[in-house]
Order: sequence, then structure tokens, then C-alpha cells
Amino acid sequence: MGLQRGGVAEEKTWPIEGVIEVSFPDEETARIVYESVLYEHESVPYRRSRIEFLRDGKKIVIRFLAKDNSALRGTLNSYLRWIKVAIDSLEV
Amino acid sequence: MGLQRGGVAEEKTWPIEGVIEVSFPDEETARIVYESVLYEHESVPYRRSRIEFLRDGKKIVIRFLAKDNSALRGTLNSYLRWIKVAIDSLEV
Repeated sequence: MGLQRGGVAEEKTWPIEGVIEVSFPDEETARIVYESVLYEHESVPYRRSRIEFLRDGKKIVIRFLAKDNSALRGTLNSYLRWIKVAIDSLEV
Repeated sequence: MGLQRGGVAEEKTWPIEGVIEVSFPDEETARIVYESVLYEHESVPYRRSRIEFLRDGKKIVIRFLAKDNSALRGTLNSYLRWIKVAIDSLEV
């Protein structure tokens, strides 16, 4: 949105892909955190990174594919922060 | 080091593991970027995340294991930024 794309013209970028898995003690906790973050996942479009956000039993799985290192950094930060917020809210 | 660990007492944290792979057009480029980032990798101790930093042909592979979501975020940011700096320096 408000991103400045000028300055560094024609950066070299190469494909980055990966996966992050967060393990929870039980499926119920995983489901609660997953559904909370899923809401964010569905409401924010990330056009510079492709993200799959899944739950597999007790695990939350984030798969990603990006061309742009900086964009990926921002995206992963968002997902890890959302997960942290959801975990923290379980403690109240 | 200067981290404040007070405030949020006894946060719930669960294991996070994952892998990030950056693909380069050729082994030589991968090797140059890898060696540049390896220097940083070896000089900074990350006690709150376990990181394996490898090269596999044309790919740089970062495997990680962490208990602490925030620490992982900081760690991944560092690696992705170091890789970006190394890539940018190839352009000069």
C-alpha cells in the first residue's frame, strides 16, 4: 500500500520457499489458535508471497513461497505475531 | 543480553520448527551468498532458537527449532536480512 518501491531499482530476487510448524499440546488448543489466525489469514491479501495456512492435528502449518525476501519477512512476522496473540489470549 | 524477561510472566510457548529454502540460479551464486551469511551465522549465538544453516547445491537451507515465537521472529528476520544484503552486494 504505502510501500516505496523506488530507490533500489531491479533488485535480484530468487525464489524462497519453506514451512513453519507450530506444535500444540492438544488438538483443541491447535484448533482455537488456528481459527483465530485463520480470520486474519483470510482478511489480508498478500500478493507478494503465496501462503498456505493449515492445521494438521495438533500442528499449525504455514507453507510459503515468495520471490521477495523483504515481503516474506513481513509476511512471516505477521503470521508469527498473530499466533502469539492468539496463544496469549488463551491465558486470560 | 539486554532483553527484558519480566512483564509477561510464564508465557505459554510451544515448539516451532521449520525450514526456509532460497534457490539461486547457480551453485556459484549460492556459494557466495552462503559464505557471506555463514560468517554472521557463526559470529552470533542464538540461545533461544536452534538454527542449522546449510547449502545444498543451488539452495541455501535454514532449518530452525524454537520454543519462543518472538525469538524465532527476530532470528528469521536476521537471516533473511543477511541473505538480502549478500544478494544486494552481488549487484555492485
